[in-house]
Amino acid sequence: LVARMRGFGTTIFAEMSALAVRTGSINLGQGFPDTDGPAAMLERAASAVREGHNQYPPGPGVPELRQAVSEHRKEHYGLAYDPDGEILVTVGATEAVAASVLALCEPGDEVIAFEPYYDSYAAAIALAGAVLRPVTLRPDGGRFTFDPAELRAAAGPRTRAILVNSPHNPTGTVLTRAELSEIADLCRERDLVAVTDEVYEHLTFDGVEHVPLATLPGMRERTVTISSAGKTFSVTGWKTGWVCAPPELVRAVQTVKQFLTFTAAAPWQLAVAHGLRHEMEWVAALRDGLQAKRDRLGAGLAAAGFDVYRPAGTYFVQADIRPLGLADGLVLTRDLPSLAGVVAIPTQVFYARPERGAHFVRFAFCKKDEVIDEAVHRLTRLG
Amino acid sequence: LVARMRGFGTTIFAEMSALAVRTGSINLGQGFPDTDGPAAMLERAASAVREGHNQYPPGPGVPELRQAVSEHRKEHYGLAYDPDGEILVTVGATEAVAASVLALCEPGDEVIAFEPYYDSYAAAIALAGAVLRPVTLRPDGGRFTFDPAELRAAAGPRTRAILVNSPHNPTGTVLTRAELSEIADLCRERDLVAVTDEVYEHLTFDGVEHVPLATLPGMRERTVTISSAGKTFSVTGWKTGWVCAPPELVRAVQTVKQFLTFTAAAPWQLAVAHGLRHEMEWVAALRDGLQAKRDRLGAGLAAAGFDVYRPAGTYFVQADIRPLGLADGLVLTRDLPSLAGVVAIPTQVFYARPERGAHFVRFAFCKKDEVIDEAVHRLTRLG
Ligand SMILES: CSCCC(=O)C(=O)O
Ligand SMILES: CSCCC(=O)C(=O)O
Repeated sequence: LVARMRGFGTTIFAEMSALAVRTGSINLGQGFPDTDGPAAMLERAASAVREGHNQYPPGPGVPELRQAVSEHRKEHYGLAYDPDGEILVTVGATEAVAASVLALCEPGDEVIAFEPYYDSYAAAIALAGAVLRPVTLRPDGGRFTFDPAELRAAAGPRTRAILVNSPHNPTGTVLTRAELSEIADLCRERDLVAVTDEVYEHLTFDGVEHVPLATLPGMRERTVTISSAGKTFSVTGWKTGWVCAPPELVRAVQTVKQFLTFTAAAPWQLAVAHGLRHEMEWVAALRDGLQAKRDRLGAGLAAAGFDVYRPAGTYFVQADIRPLGLADGLVLTRDLPSLAGVVAIPTQVFYARPERGAHFVRFAFCKKDEVIDEAVHRLTRLG
Repeated sequence: LVARMRGFGTTIFAEMSALAVRTGSINLGQGFPDTDGPAAMLERAASAVREGHNQYPPGPGVPELRQAVSEHRKEHYGLAYDPDGEILVTVGATEAVAASVLALCEPGDEVIAFEPYYDSYAAAIALAGAVLRPVTLRPDGGRFTFDPAELRAAAGPRTRAILVNSPHNPTGTVLTRAELSEIADLCRERDLVAVTDEVYEHLTFDGVEHVPLATLPGMRERTVTISSAGKTFSVTGWKTGWVCAPPELVRAVQTVKQFLTFTAAAPWQLAVAHGLRHEMEWVAALRDGLQAKRDRLGAGLAAAGFDVYRPAGTYFVQADIRPLGLADGLVLTRDLPSLAGVVAIPTQVFYARPERGAHFVRFAFCKKDEVIDEAVHRLTRLG
């Protein structure tokens, strides 16, 4: 293994999901729902296979999906992207992030990302030979946010890009317009490209609004917006995502993307086009259901003795383990299967400086109520 | 776009397929069949979607597929790979190649590859910051082969790996045991890792045998073997491939792969497991059909005035355009849609030194007989 990747072992998701299978534990670790997406969308995928959409789709993606993504961005956010040249279909958001970072960052370039971060961000930056400059999200009034001065201090002459994820995994923070403005100001002043991961765009609660960074003044032209079907439509195993950006940025991302996987699988693309066009009510119901699950798991974890951060989006709850007299989430999550038959994610692995998140553990609530209840029941024994 | 990728535009496949769609031409360019894979395998994919296999599969791949790949390598080649730790499912062979090169090659390392090569090889090497050392395959007695002295001369102190593709796209060469021995000798002497792309392993003709490099003495331990379902089962749009290698090499490849796309889509994996177990007779019939198509297209191209190289494997024919009084395949393939309503691939784009392949054009014959006949009919007007 090359030196630049030696710090990266098996992803924590694969590791913890394997642990859940091995120990028969309830898996509140990796973020995937235990109920599949809308029936008509699944049926569209099945019929696409039967009707013969099983060969390479066009490089940028199936036209129907690019058109549907374009309409979706327009309808939901007022953003206009040309399906021909401003939209690229990818193998999930992970490939979109990897291709964007590899396309934009020279060795030695610096990339700002907010820690804790989805682990592929740091890996993609390392793979490019670039340097990660972390800015820490810290608890403040029940949610996580960043210090604008720390953000500014992270930018230097070699800074090329900033990776922004909102709604944010794992903290559940949905960045406010004011927070996004701080980011946008910096991008414009320093001529940075913003790469935004918006895969939880429709999973926000209590009426909190998701604001795409590209809607801020001067940002559309410098933003690579990434989203995907997995979280929105509960089909994480389909690995279908997309990039929206100005032509020059899309071309750069596509140049790399085509050599990572060539194209994204064809039948899902037709099904996801159906989803974006006809299943947004299903998504609204999913969101409302998730809000109730958030409260259910949150109350249960609080009763079990955790300090719980109530997320405004995503399907993850961040819990502080210190009230239980514990200090290290890595130790706890390793022991949790035998202690309680539950798997969770030690948030510290998402930090460039793990000690800043040592006491946080992430639980997923995209699960059936009875699964959440049983997990809570088991965790209550911990206290 | 970063400097190291600036030489790479849109892949020739995406470009030529888009040209075919735009001009309504017969597409003998990009390698995908116009008939889908076995009905029961398609049905298995459709039922996997319906039965709820739509969430993230395990990181290394669905156990059924890893087991089926293991049995397949054993049964066909006598090679034993442990499904747990020696097999990794990828998003097609392209991702497997990219992840292998990125995992194994430090910036400045050298990688040997035979030109002409599938274009992602050069791109993956560039992405890693490594250096491509090309060895040319040249016509010799009706097939393409390499000069062992040229191969040896390509290896230097910084050489880390060799990329081997047999059956070979675009020349149709199936490397002989003697040729593979030359490669194996060099790998052992210079302690190189071999990365072999064997996606056309079952598409060989006239009884010519595909020999995996890993079966040669001392090679299993230093070979990353790559294959995929797309070509074998006529489902190029499913993007499902795999890597077989010793544990340490699989771990290295997986470390990178998980950050390129996380996992490969779940439902295909179950369907492909079915394919490897139950559809090898279908594949034998596909192969026999392709052999007849090879002869059909070959005869037609010869009648149209091309010098035709009869491939021993793959579904591509390499044609020399000089007998037609033409010199540059790039010019010809650009004009071919308006001249004849046919799209082909200019082989020269697969060379590090394009002038060595300026006069070659590649035609795909994985098409219905009437499509081949019509293409030949149109091309005959050229002469
Ligand atoms: C595991 S891949 C994508 C992110 C996610 O689902 C998670 O954080 O659990
Ligand atoms: C286009 S991707 C894989 C290779 C292939 O099909 C081709 O060479 O045409």
